[in-house]
Amino acid sequence: MNIILLSGGSGKRLWPLSNDIRSKQFIKIFKREDGGLESMVQRVYRQIRKVDKEANVIIATSKSQVSLIHNQLGDNVGISVEPCRRDTFPAIVLATAYLHDIMGISGEEPVVVCPVDPYVDDSYFETLKLLGGQAAKGEANLVLMGIAPAYPSEKYGYIIPEKKADVSPVSSFKEKPDTETAKTYIAQGALWNGGVFAYKINYVLQKAHELIDFESYDDLFAKYDTLEKISFDYAVAENEPRIQMMRYSGGWKDLGTWNTLTEVMNETAVGNAVLNETCENTHVVNELDIPILCMGMKDVVVSASPEGILVSDKEQSSQIKPFVDQMGQQVMFAEKSWGSFHVLDVEEYSMTIKVTLKPGHRMNYHSHQHRDEIWNVIAGTGTVLIDGMEQPVSPGDVVTMQAGCRHTIIADTTLQVIEVQLGKEISVHDKQKFQLEN
Amino acid sequence: MNIILLSGGSGKRLWPLSNDIRSKQFIKIFKREDGGLESMVQRVYRQIRKVDKEANVIIATSKSQVSLIHNQLGDNVGISVEPCRRDTFPAIVLATAYLHDIMGISGEEPVVVCPVDPYVDDSYFETLKLLGGQAAKGEANLVLMGIAPAYPSEKYGYIIPEKKADVSPVSSFKEKPDTETAKTYIAQGALWNGGVFAYKINYVLQKAHELIDFESYDDLFAKYDTLEKISFDYAVAENEPRIQMMRYSGGWKDLGTWNTLTEVMNETAVGNAVLNETCENTHVVNELDIPILCMGMKDVVVSASPEGILVSDKEQSSQIKPFVDQMGQQVMFAEKSWGSFHVLDVEEYSMTIKVTLKPGHRMNYHSHQHRDEIWNVIAGTGTVLIDGMEQPVSPGDVVTMQAGCRHTIIADTTLQVIEVQLGKEISVHDKQKFQLEN
Repeated sequence: MNIILLSGGSGKRLWPLSNDIRSKQFIKIFKREDGGLESMVQRVYRQIRKVDKEANVIIATSKSQVSLIHNQLGDNVGISVEPCRRDTFPAIVLATAYLHDIMGISGEEPVVVCPVDPYVDDSYFETLKLLGGQAAKGEANLVLMGIAPAYPSEKYGYIIPEKKADVSPVSSFKEKPDTETAKTYIAQGALWNGGVFAYKINYVLQKAHELIDFESYDDLFAKYDTLEKISFDYAVAENEPRIQMMRYSGGWKDLGTWNTLTEVMNETAVGNAVLNETCENTHVVNELDIPILCMGMKDVVVSASPEGILVSDKEQSSQIKPFVDQMGQQVMFAEKSWGSFHVLDVEEYSMTIKVTLKPGHRMNYHSHQHRDEIWNVIAGTGTVLIDGMEQPVSPGDVVTMQAGCRHTIIADTTLQVIEVQLGKEISVHDKQKFQLEN
Repeated sequence: MNIILLSGGSGKRLWPLSNDIRSKQFIKIFKREDGGLESMVQRVYRQIRKVDKEANVIIATSKSQVSLIHNQLGDNVGISVEPCRRDTFPAIVLATAYLHDIMGISGEEPVVVCPVDPYVDDSYFETLKLLGGQAAKGEANLVLMGIAPAYPSEKYGYIIPEKKADVSPVSSFKEKPDTETAKTYIAQGALWNGGVFAYKINYVLQKAHELIDFESYDDLFAKYDTLEKISFDYAVAENEPRIQMMRYSGGWKDLGTWNTLTEVMNETAVGNAVLNETCENTHVVNELDIPILCMGMKDVVVSASPEGILVSDKEQSSQIKPFVDQMGQQVMFAEKSWGSFHVLDVEEYSMTIKVTLKPGHRMNYHSHQHRDEIWNVIAGTGTVLIDGMEQPVSPGDVVTMQAGCRHTIIADTTLQVIEVQLGKEISVHDKQKFQLEN
């Protein structure tokens, strides 16, 4: 099975756990069987592997998510990096070209496209396989998944099938309706359009060549920023007469708000939290080291991260976005391919950060124009490289770097550093990267 | 006016803002007229100065609070330090002896004793003056304040006066009653006993010599740990036949729980907080740098500090203590006479702390047996003293100290340091203090 997972969004509705660089799909909130926590993307990836160990998985995403995806899924996951955001049609074409040109998959093979963050049963991924199989038959150019609606939602588009069978030609598509209209659609046998579909590689490449002037994956990648923003639905699906739908009746949830997310949490608290016995239908997700104590809360979600603390009635938690937009604040923590960082303290002319590097990983070799930095090694061993000079480091070592000096640190074991930044203009944009010689 | 303010308690019921070293009276929660915040003890001290600029104020307290009292009230406030805790009778005797022997106040002068943390109108302090004046007359040996009860409380002792006049002999004292009994007391004209009383210095010194074998303040201080724990009520008040009561009918509140504390807050939020328009009777006190967003909360208090986060129904907030006892955690921040510290990060073999020193102040000259330390100066200028060697420091300077090395830092301007501690056994008890030569 070839799968393209579309990974997008900035996900402010799950503030303070999601932010500009960590979308909701990366929040670790689900208890695994071994007791650890996993994110939506880790859950989906694990489920795909369970259903099809050999699946070719490509994650279509922006540059800003690459480091975090490697952090959560490992270094071997396939990623089709979009140089900039151009909506779903260019993204799907780029990932399809990647499968064909870079990975050498035959144009006759089917591909399934789905979002990276549905909360679903394993049977969903069995249906994806069937979807691919159906596309391979060639009865239609596009095979969509139709999700049996749990209620007349206003949040999704609807697919009206010609027949009640599990596989049927599509009669028409309907935009997000109001509840009353949704009820009439459902009475006609309509299904939710969850943005999942399958096609043969050659079909999408041919559609792409009709609409975009390009030679190959590399060529498309190079001119990606010149492409028009256009959705796959608009560019392809809505104009395609040979289109089928396959019914999926298993569990499916779109976890876009705290209200829906806490519905699927299998424990009332993640992280350091105590709820007294009078709390009802209350969930706590705490990514801070300090404890949270809840007393007498009903239908409430409490969530804390280095970026802030939310205390909200669950119903109202879906209206969080304008408040979060107002805050417009700094990213205080992030997971990267090489490890993670956490801002500990911000003063007018200084910032203190805890950096954790995974064994064998390193930061980029870089310099800053407007700030000096000090590294205090607190755990692990490794090597620093300062203006080309190497030096081993271990706990207690201090390395000072003037503005302009090139530096990186390479971890042998898990390495932790307290980094003190000093300068009149401390900014994430003040960073020049350099190639390492070897 | 001579006033002894009794400052006690560890105040877990206002967690996470109070802790083992910061009692509730030191929490900065009241808006001053100039927009700044003040604590209960700062408020009381300011009110005393307003009513009597020349008042002799002595704060009777334990060693652990001295640094914090200087931080909040300045270096000139009088403090009678109890070498250990021995209940109110020894504490009052020690402070009275301090007034007489050290400050040279005449034995014929009156003294007023009151708790450091009542939430009261300025008129309360006018009444204290009258209380002192009444004691000076010599009609009675003790003059107690009787507080006109706002409701039949179970939380206070009651004073039954002989007459309804503003000043009256005391008929009897009553222990904390149940609500029904309280109602019958109030029907008899009973008043709350707020632990406020006045006497002539000689009276208490004479009582003290009857019960304790001591010569002078210095002698009493030296043998303080051998004294029996006994309350002033039990040792003196209950056996004194010449005892009067003076009525106080102004505002008086005992702010012992989040519920009562938030009642007197003149704003819904202190610190970085946003409450949406559907919040009702909800208060936020946030001492963290990160924002708190509250949506749809009713009758709730949210409080956050480096030690934890409380989200509680106001009614239930009075039952916090057993939960806080369970947490039994480390002190994460403190205000000291010389400035403040804030724990930023705790790892197995390291701790990172931000230290702020006030201009002209310094830490103790000290060493640690089991940890190395690194100072990263991030703001201000000063001098470090390391094993007798002086060195000026400014932002960007790094000082490393091996275990065993004696060190201190003296601030010229407000000085901020990121201190990284490294060692297998990091403990607040691993500290040897030394005298500075000059």
